[in-house]
Amino acid sequence: MISGKNYIGSKVSANGERTFHTFDPKSNQNTAWTFYEASSTEIDEAVHLAEQAFQEYKQFSGVKKAGFLRAIAKEIENLGDELIKTYTQESGLPEGRALGERGRTMGQLNAFATLLEEGSWTDATIDTAIPERTPIPKEDIRKMLVPIGPIVVFGSSNFPFAFSTAGGDTASALAAGCPVIVKSHPMHAGTGELVASAIIKAAKRTGMPDGVFSNLNSSGIEVGERLVTHPKVKGVGFTGSIRGGTALYNLGTQREEPIPVFAEMGSVNPVIVLPSALEDKKDHWASQYAGSITLGSGQFCTNPGLLIGLKGKALDNFVSTLGEQLSLLDPSSMLHPNIHENYEKGRKEISSNEKVSVVAEFDKELPPNYGRQQLLTVSGKDFLENPVMHQEVFGPLSLVVQCADEEELTNILHSLEGQLTGTILGDEPEIKKYEKVVDALKSKVGRIIFNSVPTGVEVCPSMFHGGPFPATTDSRFTSVGTSAIIRWVRPVCFQNWPQSMLPAELQNDNPLGIMRKVNGTFTSNPI
Amino acid sequence: MISGKNYIGSKVSANGERTFHTFDPKSNQNTAWTFYEASSTEIDEAVHLAEQAFQEYKQFSGVKKAGFLRAIAKEIENLGDELIKTYTQESGLPEGRALGERGRTMGQLNAFATLLEEGSWTDATIDTAIPERTPIPKEDIRKMLVPIGPIVVFGSSNFPFAFSTAGGDTASALAAGCPVIVKSHPMHAGTGELVASAIIKAAKRTGMPDGVFSNLNSSGIEVGERLVTHPKVKGVGFTGSIRGGTALYNLGTQREEPIPVFAEMGSVNPVIVLPSALEDKKDHWASQYAGSITLGSGQFCTNPGLLIGLKGKALDNFVSTLGEQLSLLDPSSMLHPNIHENYEKGRKEISSNEKVSVVAEFDKELPPNYGRQQLLTVSGKDFLENPVMHQEVFGPLSLVVQCADEEELTNILHSLEGQLTGTILGDEPEIKKYEKVVDALKSKVGRIIFNSVPTGVEVCPSMFHGGPFPATTDSRFTSVGTSAIIRWVRPVCFQNWPQSMLPAELQNDNPLGIMRKVNGTFTSNPI
Repeated sequence: MISGKNYIGSKVSANGERTFHTFDPKSNQNTAWTFYEASSTEIDEAVHLAEQAFQEYKQFSGVKKAGFLRAIAKEIENLGDELIKTYTQESGLPEGRALGERGRTMGQLNAFATLLEEGSWTDATIDTAIPERTPIPKEDIRKMLVPIGPIVVFGSSNFPFAFSTAGGDTASALAAGCPVIVKSHPMHAGTGELVASAIIKAAKRTGMPDGVFSNLNSSGIEVGERLVTHPKVKGVGFTGSIRGGTALYNLGTQREEPIPVFAEMGSVNPVIVLPSALEDKKDHWASQYAGSITLGSGQFCTNPGLLIGLKGKALDNFVSTLGEQLSLLDPSSMLHPNIHENYEKGRKEISSNEKVSVVAEFDKELPPNYGRQQLLTVSGKDFLENPVMHQEVFGPLSLVVQCADEEELTNILHSLEGQLTGTILGDEPEIKKYEKVVDALKSKVGRIIFNSVPTGVEVCPSMFHGGPFPATTDSRFTSVGTSAIIRWVRPVCFQNWPQSMLPAELQNDNPLGIMRKVNGTFTSNPI
Repeated sequence: MISGKNYIGSKVSANGERTFHTFDPKSNQNTAWTFYEASSTEIDEAVHLAEQAFQEYKQFSGVKKAGFLRAIAKEIENLGDELIKTYTQESGLPEGRALGERGRTMGQLNAFATLLEEGSWTDATIDTAIPERTPIPKEDIRKMLVPIGPIVVFGSSNFPFAFSTAGGDTASALAAGCPVIVKSHPMHAGTGELVASAIIKAAKRTGMPDGVFSNLNSSGIEVGERLVTHPKVKGVGFTGSIRGGTALYNLGTQREEPIPVFAEMGSVNPVIVLPSALEDKKDHWASQYAGSITLGSGQFCTNPGLLIGLKGKALDNFVSTLGEQLSLLDPSSMLHPNIHENYEKGRKEISSNEKVSVVAEFDKELPPNYGRQQLLTVSGKDFLENPVMHQEVFGPLSLVVQCADEEELTNILHSLEGQLTGTILGDEPEIKKYEKVVDALKSKVGRIIFNSVPTGVEVCPSMFHGGPFPATTDSRFTSVGTSAIIRWVRPVCFQNWPQSMLPAELQNDNPLGIMRKVNGTFTSNPI
């Protein structure tokens, strides 16, 4: 029952004049639905409603907000087959992936609910008064985190569930106490509308104020621009291209009142293959990485686009085995003709470079929009001299850099831009032996992995999915894991404030039983 | 023994061609010293050295860095009288203030040392592996905070010690593990040089790498611009004007690689005087606020520039008492003729507005550069219609806004820009009665105070000295208190990493005995 309309809070609305369709990349044709792009009036209405809702929503207890998040997860599940079918149709991704990603999305919502129910995330910090202190008495001072206001979330192309309508950005902002306005991704607007309907149902069922959530359709950039520059919007979450993310970052920081824009953008996720990994474990890693490179047709921000090793027979053998494994795997559909076209363009550009050799590729005919996996090699020297090769090609492609020696390898790492992840394949003594390599890698990434693959991002308190620019616009914050909540809050400090008027988190009794820092010491005891 | 030269690490250097003097506002003449502005070569050298030092410094334990911070405090004390005399001469501030501010500065350094020695600030978070999990095993994931790189700190005009060379920005960045390059404030370059010499001595004594600290002189904007746009600089701390802070923020966010710029800027620090405060406590508050408005000649970012109350006989009486008290206090010297001139300009502009009445002012002759305190009133309606009256006048001036009713008062609060502090004077039942007023105030400020004065910023874990734009460029971070350290760090996540190669903070044994979040629970136990 997809209407193609926008949700302005709980109201469905289609006042705009522009319409668009979504596309089924597997059947290579438009879907049946027509979507109505949000008009300026509808955008302003959604923001205004969010601002109003914020006044009430920010006062709700953690337990009440947790109930809302759990209800969203439940309502998403209740959408059943229709949701899964719409997802696979609009993304070309297989049903197994749809089910897995739905599970992850529900898991994220529930994880934030658990965080709220436990309650210690608000960083409650208390320093009690010392009236007898000389020369000046010390007053009672207490602080905790409070939500910043309406947040705009941009749906991403490659995760129609987990990084879109009810994905990590939305879940973390709602958990923080901020209303959310989603700018739905045009490639899967139908999936987005269904998930939005689940959120609206959950909001009604759990007594949330109207406007705590809105979902706006758009096929161009205008809706996003108007949202990010709206004075009542206080923060932005985005997952996508460097170009798109940087444009939003510039809009957000150049407003009259600058706001934080958390854009998670490109990454080639370098993998350092140390000598020992090329010996006994050669076949293991070749098979693991063939799988990681082609997973989801390579359309992951953590896709390993760059393998770096020391030139020689052992690396040659590994590359050849990896190439064989890679070309045996069945290609799959990419998300959209545009994404496929960009991949083909990027792939041809780099593989036609005379310094680059093609090791292996899938060499049979492919249906339209399918991603043709490819493995390339280049020398360390040529890689260093051609920064264009450092850029991400979004799709199932990986470039192997063959370094002359450890020094060149280290120089290459220093020459790279910021990354989401970096991986070391080797044994424990090598971490010590290649200390400079490991240190150089660590300085460039948000997550450093030993003997594993970068794809597959665990949702847990210790996860950090972020990294130095241009992996993200702010290396201090994660978009995956429960720490993502702190993007949408700021501290407020209460000085000399009466007990009865303090938020529960800061009262002497500690009625919520949370962990607090009291006079310099962590404790969950009352004062 | 002030040389007027720059410190490039431990080397004194004066290659630049531009020189300048500092000024003694009390004797109204230049000091005897000549300062050499840092040249482009010297700036680049300082940054390069900082980057090199970072490779070593970032590896140091908390205890080792704490030793450095404590040594700085000690060396500052060792400078003795010469430092205090230079401070009073270059600032016009009295000796008592110099001693107090020196104590606070040493206290800040020692507070960060204590934080490092305790060690839990790194936010160590651990989720152990679940190899038996289906369908995919869970890998071991651990994260902690690591320093981001060389930081540029701008000395502020109004705190030659506590917000300058070895002030809160420097102390927090060094504590985080980041080398610091100070752009010394030109009004107190001699004080800055002395403090820099203490830091350099402490660095040598405690085995810190050369370049962990540099101090650069400058009288214009070029040195600061070159520093903030240098690719190897990774963050900026600034305390000063909205114009200056915004310019630096724009430079920092528009670089090829954007960096965080923490600028603490203007604030009028609204004080809401609720009816009960005008009754019994009228004389008490009049005397407290006369002191707060004129403290340090009003040259504090937390100076109460705006008092807001409900029109009527009671408010009139309070204003008249406050005016009397205010005009009885002895004025004092402002920091510099430029600051005095700006104050006079701002004061005349607002007091000559026909909607504004002058209640009281110090009406005797004053020596050059002394700040003439003044109390003004305006109606709520006129204040709402003239946003120019919402701006800070830096100096001992306060404007009383007389509101027609509670609704107008609330509207006024909503019309204000972001503020460092907001204060409520009243009794406990009034906080409930005026809930909307309190809520509106809370949404605009970083610190909300009950029955006290905003001046006097306690240095402790619960302090938050920051606030929504334009009070600062980022409402999520404080520049005072030990939480200031988190401005200079980012998380790094270790996945599947061998125990022996993990930082001490993340090892199973918990050798540092710090508080950690392990599998979702806070604990200082080993795993």
